[in-house]
Amino acid sequence: MAGERRRVGTLLFDVLGTLVDETGSVADEVGSALTEAGSDPSQSTRLSREWARRISEQQRLVNAGEIAWTSQDQVRRATINEIAAEHGIPLDRPALERLATAGHRLRPWPDSAAALASLAERFLTVALSNADLPTLADLSRQGGLRWHCVLSGELVRAYKPHPAVYRLALRMLRLDPGRTMMVATHPWDLRAAAEHGLMTAYVARPGGTAPDPTDQFDIVASDLADLAGQLPTEVDAVRR
Amino acid sequence: MAGERRRVGTLLFDVLGTLVDETGSVADEVGSALTEAGSDPSQSTRLSREWARRISEQQRLVNAGEIAWTSQDQVRRATINEIAAEHGIPLDRPALERLATAGHRLRPWPDSAAALASLAERFLTVALSNADLPTLADLSRQGGLRWHCVLSGELVRAYKPHPAVYRLALRMLRLDPGRTMMVATHPWDLRAAAEHGLMTAYVARPGGTAPDPTDQFDIVASDLADLAGQLPTEVDAVRR
Repeated sequence: MAGERRRVGTLLFDVLGTLVDETGSVADEVGSALTEAGSDPSQSTRLSREWARRISEQQRLVNAGEIAWTSQDQVRRATINEIAAEHGIPLDRPALERLATAGHRLRPWPDSAAALASLAERFLTVALSNADLPTLADLSRQGGLRWHCVLSGELVRAYKPHPAVYRLALRMLRLDPGRTMMVATHPWDLRAAAEHGLMTAYVARPGGTAPDPTDQFDIVASDLADLAGQLPTEVDAVRR
Repeated sequence: MAGERRRVGTLLFDVLGTLVDETGSVADEVGSALTEAGSDPSQSTRLSREWARRISEQQRLVNAGEIAWTSQDQVRRATINEIAAEHGIPLDRPALERLATAGHRLRPWPDSAAALASLAERFLTVALSNADLPTLADLSRQGGLRWHCVLSGELVRAYKPHPAVYRLALRMLRLDPGRTMMVATHPWDLRAAAEHGLMTAYVARPGGTAPDPTDQFDIVASDLADLAGQLPTEVDAVRR
């Protein structure tokens, strides 16, 4: 594995969960909305989990071709409105509108901006996310995340782990998969990337999913500094 | 104008010529290739101008629908091969192959990386270029240019000044054109941007084209520091 790692030229980064705290930020916004509505904020974790579950399910239906393409922003809006209606949550229209755009305000993890800036000195650094481009642009601006290239599943109307999204990165940037590493906190994202010949780096994040005992990722890192320490220090500038 | 400028939230940057020295870098590579081939390097300016002219002409034919989509990388390769054959330039296959990829090695202007990093603290910073995405990724990595989002005419198979490219940025990032400024050293790029309601900033660069006396750009800057000084210091974070 160590020998292979020396070949890395490009890092493809998952964003939601990996560079920004999606779960915590959304739960906080749901909690604030409930408090402002005079409702019980302790429901926020349960409701935001339910929201995340419905978003995943809609994305799965898009990937399966069972429903038409819907951007993640549209999915967020539709699903929070459903949940509010079905659970009888007393949020007025402005509160629901604010929650619908919560995806644009996810907090970066404290190490994300600096690590990304440092890794960009050595590697081609590319976002490969299920968030749509306006959301990625807003999160990048607010979180100080900056890139050599930014790609979204939106460009091929599919969501990771659909193969079209990994192929998008390989094809659009003409990358050698054997010199490209997917960085994510989601084991499912890395397993799918590995199926396309990509190297994989798992980064543990609070609230994330641990790898299965059978997962074999090229790097398992406790945070982005740990990842940077496990990557080669010298990289051929033309390697892609 | 000064009042309007205060509304800027997003800067769309032309890259070739504006952030990297396309003309000088290409002429240098042509000169080196001629020298290595034992040929007269003083032809390099003439040949590289001829090359640029043919690239522009091919892009015009793509925009006019007279030839099929061809990426800028492919256009560069085809046109240098044509020129070498027609002018009887004694370059062997490896020398031609190296010139064909010269677009990936354009030198950044000395102020580009730092200015872009500084402007990214205030504005949404987006590349909007006729270079294809692999080229933009390589130029950004080598030149230390980093972005919140990177867009290429390749995504809509058209070249600026074709309207589809400006519409791509407005549509994909859901930008308000009245809060968006195109930054370029090419007057033709800014004139086309203005037709879509975008604000415009002309940045003078060595070897570039001066504005016409009738051009009315929102900002005319001598370099990127001058541009930064003419832009507002306080920007609403959610303004797009």
